Amino acid sequence: MVKIFLKDGSMKEVRLGTTLMKIAEEWSKESESNFICAAKVNGEIKDLQDKIVSDCNIEFVTFDSLEGKNIYRHTSSHILAQAVKRLFPEAKLGIGPAIENGFYYDFDIDHTFTSEDISNIETEMRKIIKENLQVEKFELSAKDAREFLLERKEPYKVELAEDYSEKGSLSFRKQGEFVDMCSGIHLPLTGMVKAIKITNSTGAYWKGNSKNKMLKRLYGTSFPSQKMLDEYLKSVEEAKKRDHNKIGRELEFFTTVDYIGQGLPILLPKGSKVIQLLQRFVEDEEEKRGYLLTKTPFLAKNELYKISEHWYHYKENMFILGDESKDDEVFALRPMTCPFQFQVYLNKSRSYRDLPMRLNETSTLFRNESSGEMHGLIRLRQFTISEGHIACTPDQLESEFRECLELARYMLRCLKLENDVTYRFSKWDENNRDKYIGSAIEWENVQGKMREILDKAELVYDEADGEAAFYGPKLDIQFKNVHGKEDTLITIQIDFQLAKKFGMEYVDKDGEKKFPYVIHRTSLGCYERTLALLIEKYAGALPLWIAPEQVKILPISEEFHELSLEVQKQIRDFAPRVSVDLRNEKIGYKIREAQVNKVPYMVILGSKEAESNMLSVRSRSEGDLGAMSKEEFIERISKEISEKR
Amino acid sequence: MVKIFLKDGSMKEVRLGTTLMKIAEEWSKESESNFICAAKVNGEIKDLQDKIVSDCNIEFVTFDSLEGKNIYRHTSSHILAQAVKRLFPEAKLGIGPAIENGFYYDFDIDHTFTSEDISNIETEMRKIIKENLQVEKFELSAKDAREFLLERKEPYKVELAEDYSEKGSLSFRKQGEFVDMCSGIHLPLTGMVKAIKITNSTGAYWKGNSKNKMLKRLYGTSFPSQKMLDEYLKSVEEAKKRDHNKIGRELEFFTTVDYIGQGLPILLPKGSKVIQLLQRFVEDEEEKRGYLLTKTPFLAKNELYKISEHWYHYKENMFILGDESKDDEVFALRPMTCPFQFQVYLNKSRSYRDLPMRLNETSTLFRNESSGEMHGLIRLRQFTISEGHIACTPDQLESEFRECLELARYMLRCLKLENDVTYRFSKWDENNRDKYIGSAIEWENVQGKMREILDKAELVYDEADGEAAFYGPKLDIQFKNVHGKEDTLITIQIDFQLAKKFGMEYVDKDGEKKFPYVIHRTSLGCYERTLALLIEKYAGALPLWIAPEQVKILPISEEFHELSLEVQKQIRDFAPRVSVDLRNEKIGYKIREAQVNKVPYMVILGSKEAESNMLSVRSRSEGDLGAMSKEEFIERISKEISEKR
Repeated sequence: MVKIFLKDGSMKEVRLGTTLMKIAEEWSKESESNFICAAKVNGEIKDLQDKIVSDCNIEFVTFDSLEGKNIYRHTSSHILAQAVKRLFPEAKLGIGPAIENGFYYDFDIDHTFTSEDISNIETEMRKIIKENLQVEKFELSAKDAREFLLERKEPYKVELAEDYSEKGSLSFRKQGEFVDMCSGIHLPLTGMVKAIKITNSTGAYWKGNSKNKMLKRLYGTSFPSQKMLDEYLKSVEEAKKRDHNKIGRELEFFTTVDYIGQGLPILLPKGSKVIQLLQRFVEDEEEKRGYLLTKTPFLAKNELYKISEHWYHYKENMFILGDESKDDEVFALRPMTCPFQFQVYLNKSRSYRDLPMRLNETSTLFRNESSGEMHGLIRLRQFTISEGHIACTPDQLESEFRECLELARYMLRCLKLENDVTYRFSKWDENNRDKYIGSAIEWENVQGKMREILDKAELVYDEADGEAAFYGPKLDIQFKNVHGKEDTLITIQIDFQLAKKFGMEYVDKDGEKKFPYVIHRTSLGCYERTLALLIEKYAGALPLWIAPEQVKILPISEEFHELSLEVQKQIRDFAPRVSVDLRNEKIGYKIREAQVNKVPYMVILGSKEAESNMLSVRSRSEGDLGAMSKEEFIERISKEISEKR
Repeated sequence: MVKIFLKDGSMKEVRLGTTLMKIAEEWSKESESNFICAAKVNGEIKDLQDKIVSDCNIEFVTFDSLEGKNIYRHTSSHILAQAVKRLFPEAKLGIGPAIENGFYYDFDIDHTFTSEDISNIETEMRKIIKENLQVEKFELSAKDAREFLLERKEPYKVELAEDYSEKGSLSFRKQGEFVDMCSGIHLPLTGMVKAIKITNSTGAYWKGNSKNKMLKRLYGTSFPSQKMLDEYLKSVEEAKKRDHNKIGRELEFFTTVDYIGQGLPILLPKGSKVIQLLQRFVEDEEEKRGYLLTKTPFLAKNELYKISEHWYHYKENMFILGDESKDDEVFALRPMTCPFQFQVYLNKSRSYRDLPMRLNETSTLFRNESSGEMHGLIRLRQFTISEGHIACTPDQLESEFRECLELARYMLRCLKLENDVTYRFSKWDENNRDKYIGSAIEWENVQGKMREILDKAELVYDEADGEAAFYGPKLDIQFKNVHGKEDTLITIQIDFQLAKKFGMEYVDKDGEKKFPYVIHRTSLGCYERTLALLIEKYAGALPLWIAPEQVKILPISEEFHELSLEVQKQIRDFAPRVSVDLRNEKIGYKIREAQVNKVPYMVILGSKEAESNMLSVRSRSEGDLGAMSKEEFIERISKEISEKR
């Protein structure tokens, strides 16, 4: 007998050699979300089929953790591969990892999977689950592994075995007739996968390299119950309805054009209007808070980026014009504004009296993203941000940082996004020092300062190693899109290094020349990204104050055109984006169209309204509001606008 | 005897063989500006030394015409060259043409001219004038000319003689010991040049090609009287004081940085503010006039430019990213917005009901100008314009064009620039058809239409061949900078071709698919250029409504800081760019600094003002305005702002 100590504080005695599965079965409360996928024995993760060999601490890894989900989906991907091999024995296996919300498996097969094939594969997967095959593990030396895979005619696996040939031995998993070379933890039985579905089918290059062959990729997902799967699929459907990349196009906020290029959206009048409104709002708010506006060029000679070290730390993401080996001048589009905005500081000599100097700019940036990374308005090759840099003394650092945070949160409050974001303290990776400039002591020092500021501000935040800028740590304000993908919306960074590189001195009170701290910050981040987030949050029905169309006046017939134009004039001072639908269409058609276009208010004008001198008002969200006077209507919309509802 | 008919209607009989000079001496009223430089005999320009050979019409060419000035300055350049050859016999002659406001001559000489040299050359020039040498002309066959120049050891002239070898004979001019190969008309005597001066000394490549040797260039100017020369030099000095490239930097509107690059200015807070104000003003005015805002990307794959044909007609001015011979995707920064903004039209199918469609964008463009062409904020590699495109039916073309013209003139009126511009009808060059797309008939047709519209609008305009866009004719609104260099501020273009290339159809009333006309237009043109023009016009003292700083409150001592901040708050709603000078400096110092910075209004606050609850107001232009109440001051500035004075 050996003693096992469970996470809940309990202790049990079990027979030496008992499997973790056995213990899990007794412990499990049979709920779905804490479905047990693996266990940590003395902190080391183990298969449930592994046996207890001595006294130990045990912590179960359940499906509600990311680790648990990944194990569950990894085994699911093997079930998918097994089903495909049964139905298409000629398919050669690529790789099949767990990913966010599911898994995929890549196959080299000339055949393109039809929807009928996919349905058959799903049926076969359910059969494999029913067979409840044991997932056995074994190891082979790299040499034997290669021969084994050659024999099984799996050329991609052979290539992987060769890639890993320096390893002593390679792991395999076998379930029934199916064998896969594969490290990591698995469920012990195929029957533990309760509900499984193929969600998508695409192409993907072997090893993600476009020089390699394009394989067929099947995406899937799986859950410990059909109910959980159904709920997930429903939420995906709901999310799709809010997906800015779909409705943003349908509602004519933006479009893309193949011959212009990926990641280079055309903002249509509606999208352009929202961004114009947001930019003016941000610029005006920043002016009130003591920022000085700048306008700096979008490209520069590579000499500039050599000083800032972007040339050495960021070049692969930059658009370069020219070739150092043959051109007199090589330019690059800017991926960041910092080295440009610094020139404003450098325009004359500065003293402590000039600090803090707060500079802002509505700044366009360019990053040469790879095609796989670009998405709608969220990940682009060209985008515009509310960029700002604050040069300050060490004494001013904390209060300036807090003011940046306050400004960011004010912006989020105005857009009602404060509950849709999380905060991430992005630190350097001390095991990967080449990516950063500055010494370890300096990094620890400035990260300590930043942590102190964040804690004093009582901010709830996660920490992330290796997510800092190359010149300093960041506070990133993160959001997730409808697909659950996380990105940064706003960032506030402390930079203790670039001022030195650019010689940005100031004369302090004591007459000494010193370098300021520089805070790099955005207040609403990337405008295109913010627009995407707003479209998804409001399913396209933007709040009145930033709605690209605010009020649509709908005359019932031509007789009321003049009255409509008159009312438009009266409303315009309060809601400038008011238009009149002068088309010769039925009123029902006009209302439906305005509703589809998510226009916040419709004002219907006919003989009843003309006689009573009232407006018939419809709200896109509340429907018919009945008759009201012009004054009432104006008061209602003015209030809604000023409260940014 | 022969009869001569003069332009003033008079007729004279003179002896056959009389020189034009002789006739001119009798006719001349000896005024300076109508100083006679040459004469047109039956419309053909002749030297004054030429003789009358038959009855003829005679029209004198005087210094007040451009033709006359050029003749005067051409002879002046020979005087300069003669003086240099006398003092530096080793100097080899390059070329020496008349240019705007003067002339230059290029010399190959190892010596660099010192200011003492230049003074000596001027003395020598005056000596040559005093010698009153006759300017004789003679001709040589191309072969003899070459030998003659070889003998005189003028290698550059030999090269030119070789360049012109297909000509039957080449002209020479001789004055005293000096001979130059040179076509064109000259004054008959060196003594006719009354006042001459060397104005500048630079380097210049032989034939303007940087692969050739750098020669020494001396610039000069000359006038028929010392008074005219003095006046001219004074006006140049005055202009320098207004030069935006000088005071725009001193007043901190902009700067440039070597390691960023030429033609890529950094707009400092003042310049950025003015441009922000202008952009908002233009965007708002255009919204009122039915324009829809767009925001399109700054780069695209070269596929786009191939459709628009920019790739074939404009490539040498474009910034290219990548190399077609080896890269999958080649991008280019946009030199124009048209093919991008067209995508908004193309986003869905259009009918005649959608026309006119007016699109506007605050658009950044990029042109790879050569370094010699760039100047201050006027000629840049990156600039931002108030771009717009109007798609319309043939019926709408005239009214839409006129509305564009009306908008442009409204903008000019608001900026009080309406009398500082001229209008140029820019047509194609029918002798250089490769530069353009479309047939001769189409060009003549659309140019005829444009002329009709301009004439109906009773516009006074010049015509310029070869200045059209490659896709259609333009109306260019031109301005001159302080140095007299002309550039385009605003343009309105008719394009009858690009819609076809992009497949921009609309369904007309008759159900047929047709292509619209497209008007390409700007309303304030390039913002950087407009800023330059405003700085030069107002010598940096911009009108209150666009002044980057409007009011500066100057407390006399710390005691009045609180009061000053209070007054600032009250004024801010009427003049948002109001600041308080809280520095511990003497009031006289603060006033002088605000005056130097051309702040329109200074408000001085001390005990007198605190007691009387009045403001002491100073205007930058009118000086001390005495005491006034807050209400009076606010009324004054509000009126000035709303009237855009």
